[in-house]
Amino acid sequence: PNGLVNDISEFNEAVSNAQPGSVITLANGIWENTELVFQGKGTKEKPIILTVEDKGKVILSGTSNLQIAGEYLIVNGLVFKDGYTPTNAVISFRKNREELANNCRLTECVIDNYNNPERQVQDYWVTIYGKNNRIDHNHFAGKKNLGVTMIVGLDTEESRANNHSIDHNYFGPRPTYGNNGGETLRIGTSHHAMENSNTIVESNYFDRTNGEHEIISNKSGQNTFKYNTFFECTGTLTMRHGNETLVDGNVFIGNGKPSTGGVRVINESQTVINNYHIGLTGYRFRGAFVMMNGVPNSPPNRYVPVIDSKVDNNTFINCDHILFGAGNDAERSQAPKNSQFTNNIIYHEKDTNTIVFKDDGSGIIFKDNILNTNSTKNLNAGFEKADIQLIRNEQGFLIPVSEAIKEPISISSKIATKENTGTTWYSKEDQTITLNSGHVLVAEPGINTLYDVTKSSKPGDIITLRSGGEYILTKAAKVKHPLTFKTSGPNKATIFFERMMAFEIQDGGSLSLENIAFNGAKSPDYAGNSVIVTSKNSMLNNYKLFIEDCEFKNMVVNHSFDVLRAAKGTFADTISIQNSTFKNISGSITALDNETDDIGAYNVEYLIMKNNSISDVQGAALRLYRGGKDESTFGPFLEMEHNVFDHVGYGSKNKYKATVSLYGVQEIDIKNNIFKDSKAINMHLVVGEPIVKVLNNNFYNSEKLIVTGDQKYSVENTWDLEPKFK
Amino acid sequence: PNGLVNDISEFNEAVSNAQPGSVITLANGIWENTELVFQGKGTKEKPIILTVEDKGKVILSGTSNLQIAGEYLIVNGLVFKDGYTPTNAVISFRKNREELANNCRLTECVIDNYNNPERQVQDYWVTIYGKNNRIDHNHFAGKKNLGVTMIVGLDTEESRANNHSIDHNYFGPRPTYGNNGGETLRIGTSHHAMENSNTIVESNYFDRTNGEHEIISNKSGQNTFKYNTFFECTGTLTMRHGNETLVDGNVFIGNGKPSTGGVRVINESQTVINNYHIGLTGYRFRGAFVMMNGVPNSPPNRYVPVIDSKVDNNTFINCDHILFGAGNDAERSQAPKNSQFTNNIIYHEKDTNTIVFKDDGSGIIFKDNILNTNSTKNLNAGFEKADIQLIRNEQGFLIPVSEAIKEPISISSKIATKENTGTTWYSKEDQTITLNSGHVLVAEPGINTLYDVTKSSKPGDIITLRSGGEYILTKAAKVKHPLTFKTSGPNKATIFFERMMAFEIQDGGSLSLENIAFNGAKSPDYAGNSVIVTSKNSMLNNYKLFIEDCEFKNMVVNHSFDVLRAAKGTFADTISIQNSTFKNISGSITALDNETDDIGAYNVEYLIMKNNSISDVQGAALRLYRGGKDESTFGPFLEMEHNVFDHVGYGSKNKYKATVSLYGVQEIDIKNNIFKDSKAINMHLVVGEPIVKVLNNNFYNSEKLIVTGDQKYSVENTWDLEPKFK
Ligand SMILES: [Ca+2]
Ligand SMILES: [Ca+2]
Repeated sequence: PNGLVNDISEFNEAVSNAQPGSVITLANGIWENTELVFQGKGTKEKPIILTVEDKGKVILSGTSNLQIAGEYLIVNGLVFKDGYTPTNAVISFRKNREELANNCRLTECVIDNYNNPERQVQDYWVTIYGKNNRIDHNHFAGKKNLGVTMIVGLDTEESRANNHSIDHNYFGPRPTYGNNGGETLRIGTSHHAMENSNTIVESNYFDRTNGEHEIISNKSGQNTFKYNTFFECTGTLTMRHGNETLVDGNVFIGNGKPSTGGVRVINESQTVINNYHIGLTGYRFRGAFVMMNGVPNSPPNRYVPVIDSKVDNNTFINCDHILFGAGNDAERSQAPKNSQFTNNIIYHEKDTNTIVFKDDGSGIIFKDNILNTNSTKNLNAGFEKADIQLIRNEQGFLIPVSEAIKEPISISSKIATKENTGTTWYSKEDQTITLNSGHVLVAEPGINTLYDVTKSSKPGDIITLRSGGEYILTKAAKVKHPLTFKTSGPNKATIFFERMMAFEIQDGGSLSLENIAFNGAKSPDYAGNSVIVTSKNSMLNNYKLFIEDCEFKNMVVNHSFDVLRAAKGTFADTISIQNSTFKNISGSITALDNETDDIGAYNVEYLIMKNNSISDVQGAALRLYRGGKDESTFGPFLEMEHNVFDHVGYGSKNKYKATVSLYGVQEIDIKNNIFKDSKAINMHLVVGEPIVKVLNNNFYNSEKLIVTGDQKYSVENTWDLEPKFK
Repeated sequence: PNGLVNDISEFNEAVSNAQPGSVITLANGIWENTELVFQGKGTKEKPIILTVEDKGKVILSGTSNLQIAGEYLIVNGLVFKDGYTPTNAVISFRKNREELANNCRLTECVIDNYNNPERQVQDYWVTIYGKNNRIDHNHFAGKKNLGVTMIVGLDTEESRANNHSIDHNYFGPRPTYGNNGGETLRIGTSHHAMENSNTIVESNYFDRTNGEHEIISNKSGQNTFKYNTFFECTGTLTMRHGNETLVDGNVFIGNGKPSTGGVRVINESQTVINNYHIGLTGYRFRGAFVMMNGVPNSPPNRYVPVIDSKVDNNTFINCDHILFGAGNDAERSQAPKNSQFTNNIIYHEKDTNTIVFKDDGSGIIFKDNILNTNSTKNLNAGFEKADIQLIRNEQGFLIPVSEAIKEPISISSKIATKENTGTTWYSKEDQTITLNSGHVLVAEPGINTLYDVTKSSKPGDIITLRSGGEYILTKAAKVKHPLTFKTSGPNKATIFFERMMAFEIQDGGSLSLENIAFNGAKSPDYAGNSVIVTSKNSMLNNYKLFIEDCEFKNMVVNHSFDVLRAAKGTFADTISIQNSTFKNISGSITALDNETDDIGAYNVEYLIMKNNSISDVQGAALRLYRGGKDESTFGPFLEMEHNVFDHVGYGSKNKYKATVSLYGVQEIDIKNNIFKDSKAINMHLVVGEPIVKVLNNNFYNSEKLIVTGDQKYSVENTWDLEPKFK
């Protein structure tokens, strides 16, 4: 092929010799630890092209990256995977602060799971500087470490009012990061909030980009977001800073998934029109539509009040929350002004209070909005009730139809789909392997049989133990992929373990335990034992842990002996502990308080404890911590229902002096539990208007709730009755 | 050779076929991931022997280990290195709780730096069970992860009254572990404190086995320690539990090194005779000789009071501390009873108060002890002053000679030496490479020149920067071995960095920075930046960090931006920061508070801050944390002298609300500092009778000391004068 180069020195020579019209072609193969600097001057008619011998056969791996600097350069077909950038960016539209890229194009490139192994070390995948650059038809999937996937930088004059086009890109799944810094696209920063970026973001497909609250963090002026599709994204397109943003003709599909959101409006002269939203469940900052309160005389980098904004002709189908004046608090006390919410259609099949005012709505003109008749709540003038039918159009969207709707609702043919975005040659298929999707393997009772079968298992396998069998682990079983362990038969098999841990969940692992007894009688006499630990090395992949119908006992040492201990830098999507028994334990059941930097990080998204019997546990049975004041994330969520706590929390080494210690938890649901002879539930409520319900609990001869912090909570039906245990 | 086997299956077959008199010979080579179970029945006359083809040429590496079970088995010549055991022990004298080793011998084996990569994951190197086993002439050096090097287990009747002999072993250097669990030898556990072990520990050489307080933790009855040499060991032979111990004819050589100790007596009927101590500096629990107070009616696993103990004919030369009644507190209120301290010789070239009574000494008979005339303190009867000369004997020991000494002092010819212990064929040489021992490399100003030179450097190298040069790091420099960076010339070179960190100290690394300016102006706007970090993965090797004559400025982000941030699982021997300037920093200078498990772990042994100028630092300039109530370790030590703090600690995200936050620090020396417009010094004083001196400090318009906890401290000469800075 044209201008074939086989290694970095040939590449560098080709670059230095390149003239307008030159083509540099990377030879097929793995380019390991290769830092490419593509610098040159093409012309509009004769750009310089960096391409690949065969699409999909040129892989940049290890510590590779790309810098683009100059004029009229095109990069086409590079794939970054199996590695990470040693610098701040995988692909950068500049070489340094002085040498930028202008009139350049990045197309059909792929960055796939190209993550720093340290979850908490930051980098970007694409940093866009200069002007008039186009980023199109690329595929970016699986960012898991700290840092925004793509940014548009405005730090020098030469990068502002840039007219970049970001279009037809496929932004593939980005899992919950568990802290700030999980945005998919950010345009500008709070330092340059008043600058105009003039960037167009058009026809991109956002596929479960769930890193944090802000799928897109718009932080500059005069940007346009058109025809983008947000598929099951937990978060919103957020107009965080900057004015005169246009959000037009986008589609938000929630499919009823938790925390899915739409558009969030802050600042002045924003326009939100012709957008289509369906099945969005998010509340508060990730509602289907959110117009926030602002800070009076706000500096540009806080919350500029909403003024002169227009929200017109948007469609909301089965969306749970539309909020005006969100974030209203002592500082954000300024309600929206001089704005309009007009011609919008709001349909919900359930009779639900979709629209909520958190502050005075009088600064917003409501007019010609249409609600379906199910909606019984009396709203201001400006909302008309109508009989609405949903009819599926040829694109597959459910379209509201009614006599009251004069202008038929349509969705642009330019709307992004999974098919018309990204490349044609790089698969968008999901490769996640789930628990219980593999083969059944039998582990015979004995020493290290579980270790051996674990070692030879494949992802998704189910390992069955013999009914009543005795198993001893003298080596920790390393859970490297999703694995299920369960006793087949009526009598729980018993697992003893001689190491500090029975199971270590490693990066990529998930664990389900069913119908098994764990006995600590053969465990070492050392502080820090735990039945299950997560890897002490950072884990990029979120894990899941299910404990169902298990028994844990005789776990007493001179200090803590926990059931689960999560290391810093590890994050669980779900930890579910149900129908299990915990007896005689000197530590905690869940030690999820290891993110102590107080920057908003935490260890688990959903923690579910139901129908468990917990007795003689010396430590705080649950420890759950999220420090700092960041508002970028959703969790942790705690559901604690129908558990019995009997003599819990009394150990002299329980530093929380509590049965349950919750700090900064965002949603707390504690109901129908019995606490007998136990220490308190401590809750420190800060940040993010946490939703806290404590309902129908019995505290017999126990300390009760101790609540600190400045947030609201509700307590109902607290009893004080002596329970009779069998 | 006899019975040569080439792999694990041949080995297993040979073992199953072995008869009395059989020899199994491991073939030369690397045996990777090999778990040997050597089980069989030999006879006294015809043992079964496991040996190697050539000594030193058979290496067990990776996840290998050895279990010995049966009768009359001899293991000879195995070397474990480059790996770690997957189980609790590298070499175990049992297969499981039922199948033990009796009348077996482990000889001329080596375990060298065979450490779990996780510093905080526990294992033992040798676990001895059964009876009548001999462990002799082995070489054990470089244990760095959690866990005692060698234990004698007494958990079943079959392992008690065992008559094991542990003799002529070389216990090579074990660095400070920084938490409990760094013992070199433990006999028994607190659970079996009242059992007799009857183990003989004879003629072993302990070479800088500095893991923690207890070099030897004797936790059972009727053990004998004879002719062992303790060379520069920071800690003591501790009679932690059990009675009727004999400590006879041992040598303790301190060479004036900090924290070196001798024998510590607890419990009943202990005999400490004929021991020789020289140059021991340790105080409190690691004095040259310590007789502790006990707990009245103590359970066996607390502190049984000293009764009926005899301390006779011991020699102390230039030892700083001999304590009676040590540990006296509300719980340990029982002074020693019915004991004697007789015929001991105490010589010190300085006029020092060597002997201290922490409680009533009337339960101890003092008689015929001899002091040199320098000693001016009036002691009870029982101490005679004499003119003592020191004369070097033919073994090289300084022997006190005096007319008052009737019986000449001698040292047994059986005393352990480096030469008569361990093997003859495995080197005992020190392989540590120190800072500044390598070549000088020049780094030119520019982008990543420092990264490149760091990458190609060798251990000990000195990297010089150009006077006044500008250096930019867009990649973090990884410090994998000892390295020095310094500007050669009068004008400090400036280092900018674009990653979250400039330098990452990795396992095996140490760092010295001299005459360099660090500027945070190009660092990312993200919480968690730090000029220097330690690896987020556990570091087995303790590191050193020296900062001398450097400047740090413009390090402001919306949250913490630190100078040094130490990760959990990393430990510094020394961090020294001197003659440097810190200005305009949003975080801390040293964030050494990441061991939050409260089990006694901490991040640094010696922290030294002298002659620094610290202004506009928003966080707590120093954060130093050691949680829990463990008494097994020495540090952290803090020396803070002659620093100026100007407007420090006022950041809203400073969770300590202090300029200096010290928690559980064991020795604090704060003198001649100026604090202007700054927050307080917070000190939480717990555990271990910390030594705290705050002297000659000026607190102008600043908060002063805030002290919590239950320990003593002294404050002298606090001023409140307005300083004039130029
Ligand atoms: Ca964010
Ligand atoms: Ca200890």
